[in-house]
Amino acid sequence: MWTFESMVGQPSSWLDASGPRSDVVLSTRVRLARNLSGHPFPARAALEDLTAVEEKVLTSASKSNYLTNALVIRMDEAGPPVHQILVERHIASPSFGAKPEGRAVVVGENEVVSAMINEEDHLRLQALRSGLQPLDAWRLVSRIDVEVERNLQYAFSKDWGYLTSCPTNVGTGVRVSVLVHLVGLARLGEVAQVLGGISKLGLSVRGFYGERSAALGGFFQVSNQTTLGQSEEDIAYTVERISSRIVELELKAREELVARAGKRIEDEVWRAHGILTSARVMSSEEVMSLCSSLRLGVARGMIDGIDLGTLNRLLVVTQPGHLKYFHGENPSSDERDRMRADLVRRELGNRERAQ
Amino acid sequence: MWTFESMVGQPSSWLDASGPRSDVVLSTRVRLARNLSGHPFPARAALEDLTAVEEKVLTSASKSNYLTNALVIRMDEAGPPVHQILVERHIASPSFGAKPEGRAVVVGENEVVSAMINEEDHLRLQALRSGLQPLDAWRLVSRIDVEVERNLQYAFSKDWGYLTSCPTNVGTGVRVSVLVHLVGLARLGEVAQVLGGISKLGLSVRGFYGERSAALGGFFQVSNQTTLGQSEEDIAYTVERISSRIVELELKAREELVARAGKRIEDEVWRAHGILTSARVMSSEEVMSLCSSLRLGVARGMIDGIDLGTLNRLLVVTQPGHLKYFHGENPSSDERDRMRADLVRRELGNRERAQ
Repeated sequence: MWTFESMVGQPSSWLDASGPRSDVVLSTRVRLARNLSGHPFPARAALEDLTAVEEKVLTSASKSNYLTNALVIRMDEAGPPVHQILVERHIASPSFGAKPEGRAVVVGENEVVSAMINEEDHLRLQALRSGLQPLDAWRLVSRIDVEVERNLQYAFSKDWGYLTSCPTNVGTGVRVSVLVHLVGLARLGEVAQVLGGISKLGLSVRGFYGERSAALGGFFQVSNQTTLGQSEEDIAYTVERISSRIVELELKAREELVARAGKRIEDEVWRAHGILTSARVMSSEEVMSLCSSLRLGVARGMIDGIDLGTLNRLLVVTQPGHLKYFHGENPSSDERDRMRADLVRRELGNRERAQ
Repeated sequence: MWTFESMVGQPSSWLDASGPRSDVVLSTRVRLARNLSGHPFPARAALEDLTAVEEKVLTSASKSNYLTNALVIRMDEAGPPVHQILVERHIASPSFGAKPEGRAVVVGENEVVSAMINEEDHLRLQALRSGLQPLDAWRLVSRIDVEVERNLQYAFSKDWGYLTSCPTNVGTGVRVSVLVHLVGLARLGEVAQVLGGISKLGLSVRGFYGERSAALGGFFQVSNQTTLGQSEEDIAYTVERISSRIVELELKAREELVARAGKRIEDEVWRAHGILTSARVMSSEEVMSLCSSLRLGVARGMIDGIDLGTLNRLLVVTQPGHLKYFHGENPSSDERDRMRADLVRRELGNRERAQ
């Protein structure tokens, strides 16, 4: 059965590195913003409005073939620890836990498809895929959207398209995001230039788990800024095309990095592995930074026996919410750093050392 | 057969950590300074004087039961690479290679006993033992001294004792040195205080392989300053007694360190192991520092399967002279750092990774 416990206990499938260009792209997310006509946007809605929307959306979603066995989490029943885990697994937004009443998430099996109800918009539907798959993710979320819409009346204007709470989402209401690992460009000092160029093409860039992750590991999230004036498929295609170009530049940068200082990179990769499989105390910043180095080494074939998917998942399961969840009570920062180190050693397969 | 090649190819036996207090004391050296009467001290001697002394001492030494199969290395035939290895193995002094003519070393099997001929004095005899063994080492070197003296006329004054080139050695001509690992005291910031107290008791302190080794790893060499007014056995006993006290203080410091920050120390120990068994490029400073951490962990039982003797030997065999010798030609500094990392991984048993 697909429960919250089973979900937390297993890795998010979209991080398994099975998708295309997984050497550079961790995952792709396509998110749709939808609202029901005749109901105020959540920010201005009374609890009875929220509850009415919640029930309508849940009823409709349960009829979708993609969400038949979905897990429904009502935020007012769940509490902050569950919310934090949902944030770390990219299922809920950070602000979603602030006012839990009348809010819920729906999570399909393996976390490929999920929905937030009464976040900024009445419904935010998303599909998460491994690697670089904007078009595929768009088609998937679109099929669900069609199914869900059968029993709902979306707020839609012939002139503007889908109406959304925030004007930046008006139109298609689609946001396509790609999580990229630009360690090579970062090392060569070229990342600002490349990402600056992306902004001019209408895409926005931010760090995965905030700015620290960008600085520490070269992990960035690239997504479309505008949702108006282009079809959803065009947007997905644009993100795919530009992301492919970023992948090319990143692979070239890695090639150059290894040509320039291969032995130094190999040393860094092996040291990262040595520390990750040995340390007894580790901050999440250090995990981020070392996983980035090790990810480069695995992608370049410098080190065997380690799966890119394991490294992707480590970035998520070593976050504070996941550590707290498995600890049972509220661990101190020191305890978290120890649990994190134990977890990393276990995940990287040094079970005898982790004891 | 005991040859230079076989010597370099195997670890110095006095570093095997088999002796008493090997958790804190790496080794003990007792050295005697002797001169032949009727010959000028080496600094003022012509080549024919040096050669005459060299032949006399070699002939006499070859009759000692402790030196029957000894290796004789004439410095003018050996060249700088051999000299450097002898320095790193504590058999020759750094200045001994500067004027190689008429100078030689004699090395007994397993390097327990050796002699320099025509260094500052005509003869410097030494015994090297594992762990804390000043009295034992003194007795050993004394027995050889008696045997060697049978066929030689030592310069000796009834008032002053053995006459030596440098006045600080006049009297017994004995120097007793103990190589200690004071990582606990160093971490607690107490090493200066403890070593300051030692100076007041008439002992001198300096770093193993220079001052860097003291700062980086807490490795110190403690020895007597005066050689006059006490019997050799008294000097050996004094060094043994004071060293035992240092060992006690160090063990107490380690206890306190672990009580205060056990998890942090354990983390440091395991990280040191992780890096030593993983890195592809390593400076000798880093080896010194990491071996110090790992040595603490092994001594405290925090980590299994690693021998203190292996760590002692790593400090010697990762020195530049040894790396050069095995490389065959003159490696660059970068090449040395790679060879050093390869060697460390091999020595610590990760043979599959070292390839």
